[in-house]
Amino acid sequence: MTATSQHHWSADPSTLLRVGEGFRLSDVAPDATPGYDGDKKHAHADLETGAEQFDELQERLFAQSREDDDAPAVLLVLQAMDSAGKGGIVRHVIGATDPQGVHLKAFKKPTEEELAHDFLWRIEREVPKAGYIGVFDRSHYEDVLIGRVRELAPPEEIERRYDAIVDFEKRLTDAGVRIVKVMLHISPDEQKARLMERLDRADKHWKYNPGDVDERQLWPAYMEAYQTVFERTSTENAPWHVVPANAKWYARVAVQALLLDALEEIDPQWPAASFDVAAEKARLAAT
Amino acid sequence: MTATSQHHWSADPSTLLRVGEGFRLSDVAPDATPGYDGDKKHAHADLETGAEQFDELQERLFAQSREDDDAPAVLLVLQAMDSAGKGGIVRHVIGATDPQGVHLKAFKKPTEEELAHDFLWRIEREVPKAGYIGVFDRSHYEDVLIGRVRELAPPEEIERRYDAIVDFEKRLTDAGVRIVKVMLHISPDEQKARLMERLDRADKHWKYNPGDVDERQLWPAYMEAYQTVFERTSTENAPWHVVPANAKWYARVAVQALLLDALEEIDPQWPAASFDVAAEKARLAAT
Repeated sequence: MTATSQHHWSADPSTLLRVGEGFRLSDVAPDATPGYDGDKKHAHADLETGAEQFDELQERLFAQSREDDDAPAVLLVLQAMDSAGKGGIVRHVIGATDPQGVHLKAFKKPTEEELAHDFLWRIEREVPKAGYIGVFDRSHYEDVLIGRVRELAPPEEIERRYDAIVDFEKRLTDAGVRIVKVMLHISPDEQKARLMERLDRADKHWKYNPGDVDERQLWPAYMEAYQTVFERTSTENAPWHVVPANAKWYARVAVQALLLDALEEIDPQWPAASFDVAAEKARLAAT
Repeated sequence: MTATSQHHWSADPSTLLRVGEGFRLSDVAPDATPGYDGDKKHAHADLETGAEQFDELQERLFAQSREDDDAPAVLLVLQAMDSAGKGGIVRHVIGATDPQGVHLKAFKKPTEEELAHDFLWRIEREVPKAGYIGVFDRSHYEDVLIGRVRELAPPEEIERRYDAIVDFEKRLTDAGVRIVKVMLHISPDEQKARLMERLDRADKHWKYNPGDVDERQLWPAYMEAYQTVFERTSTENAPWHVVPANAKWYARVAVQALLLDALEEIDPQWPAASFDVAAEKARLAAT
């Protein structure tokens, strides 16, 4: 927790927000700001400081991979109910670093072609390469969330998927992809207020989708589906984190802290030159 | 030139830097800062102001496309000799907006699969969708630059490509893609200094490639190849701009101005709601 020690964290968010044994989603208060002793103003300042650290670590991560195809990558998996703030995380946390080192993928309703393959087919294609920070805005978890709630697949297929996901993620982490799984947790009231704002403002209409209200009416079923996801797929190598997200400033600074923690654990190093530096200096000087 | 009028531009960079009739690359001074009356400090401030405008226009461009598959897109094509600052443009100009609306593609040496297709095959696949800002870090122009200088294809094939590019770009602009083509122009001495810095600093070694010195030794041939590119492919609908780039701050503020100009010409509008706003408010309120 080096990166966050000068911040307003009183406890390590990676530990505090982690889904472990006996976790109950219903015990998490969406309007809480666990482990953070500051307010919105402090969080903005911390986010800026963190952005510089994030940017430097990203560059090292990328540099390290230039000489090593097996170098680590990072994959942030973002799941949430509509309007919980996934887009804001991408914009304000991920957007702080070089776009050249980011691989962002928003998973929409599967296409015909995607449906004709196993559910992990389209996911595998978007796994970040060595040195990249991948971001999944929605993910393979949709296939056990809306897939379950809307009964888009038979129960035995949904069951199969939990184990398939665990195996898949184990393979990725064995291959050097550090997976950071985040559910942004808002309350139904907060969602209502955010959707209403989208309806109130002409410059927000494009963000509103009538289907959001349909999904909203299935809130308890979604929370149950998330609870099952956590029980079945929060593993040692790829644990879930539930981030209270009614306060956007908290969610952003918390997700940033989770990413900084992952990057510091990787501790990427500038790679040694793969050429003779003195010889190249002489060659360049002669031109 | 609305966006740049409160800045330090004394002339419209879109006009000033545009490659027109009788253009000679050899007449462009790489260390000049044409049309800009400020210094580095002013440029930093202008870049920040411009970043806000860029960010807002990008959001409108993206929003507009949500209800219209035929909505415009923007494509920035970046070409330059090594170390001219393409990466800095992506980081500091493009990086100022939401990564969710950017489609960035760095074209490397073609793969076996790419070589087995026409040279535009891999390019076509990366054309930005409606609403996106696409960025090509290198592009199809490599096939008439290094392709010509290194004789990677016979002369008649290189000849064919100029016309193919003009037709291809015409098709894109007809389909609503606003193309902004930029060559960042540095001097050989400036390149030497930048490459030497990469050799001097251990945290920059990863950016150095011995092949850069080989290409550098072909400088005059590359300048000739660029001159021919400008003569053959700077068209009304997709003109080239040559941006002096010895001063990084100038190149960044100039490319930003070119993008702002393109976006203002598009003048993207918030789309009208595709649903009944009052009915949705009532439906949401009832949940």
